[in-house]
Amino acid sequence: MRIKMELARILIRESQPAQLIELRESDVPAEMARSFPIIIGISEAIAIDRRLAGVDIGRPMTHDLIINTINQLGASIESVTITKVVNATFYAEIIVNDHQGEPTMIDARPSDAIAIAVTCQVPIYADDSVLSITTPPMDDLAQ
Amino acid sequence: MRIKMELARILIRESQPAQLIELRESDVPAEMARSFPIIIGISEAIAIDRRLAGVDIGRPMTHDLIINTINQLGASIESVTITKVVNATFYAEIIVNDHQGEPTMIDARPSDAIAIAVTCQVPIYADDSVLSITTPPMDDLAQ
Repeated sequence: MRIKMELARILIRESQPAQLIELRESDVPAEMARSFPIIIGISEAIAIDRRLAGVDIGRPMTHDLIINTINQLGASIESVTITKVVNATFYAEIIVNDHQGEPTMIDARPSDAIAIAVTCQVPIYADDSVLSITTPPMDDLAQ
Repeated sequence: MRIKMELARILIRESQPAQLIELRESDVPAEMARSFPIIIGISEAIAIDRRLAGVDIGRPMTHDLIINTINQLGASIESVTITKVVNATFYAEIIVNDHQGEPTMIDARPSDAIAIAVTCQVPIYADDSVLSITTPPMDDLAQ
């Protein structure tokens, strides 16, 4: 099952190569929402941050290029999903509807998927299994 | 007219934000070949360099994602062209043949276009006007 998520925060420490974004379950009360962090590279973090801030530098940046390419081929981006986590590495896919409206799944790193989702304002999902692995069960929290 | 080019060199100075790549006219004797430099960002320079070195990090990097997306939509990359230079800013386009083989031109920064061309091993061109602006006329060189 896919759970709807939102980009809760992005932490950029320019002196370090590894940056951090946090996805949080949306459509549930804040105190119930599960969340997990993903470590991403500095250039992807800056790309996401620039999109959140609505900065337009007047040239197609790399993620704009992906979006423009999809649109010029008559396709459209439906959503992105964090599909699994294996050995602390997160995997994602971008769901693109082709020129006939047929969905195709494209493997991506979460950072690229989220940069695209933030730019296109399409939903971000996480597979239920990702949340099970990355967030402690309620029983643990109650102790 | 489009002139066939090749990536002659890439200079990475990690301490600086601006990196340099040089495109050189191919298919002509070395002493006749015109060339010009393009300043690009560090992350794009690293992406190009990684591709030239054939480094496979096992995950789809951002330019792989563009290529995979195009292929999964039944389209293919034909070539890239540096189309113009305005106020020292270079512009490029990626020529993509859609699922019906119809070409579509997608605006791109030269760094993204070249990273894609190097990965897919498709030709890199420059419009003749770009070479006219960026290289001195033969008369000047003879003085």
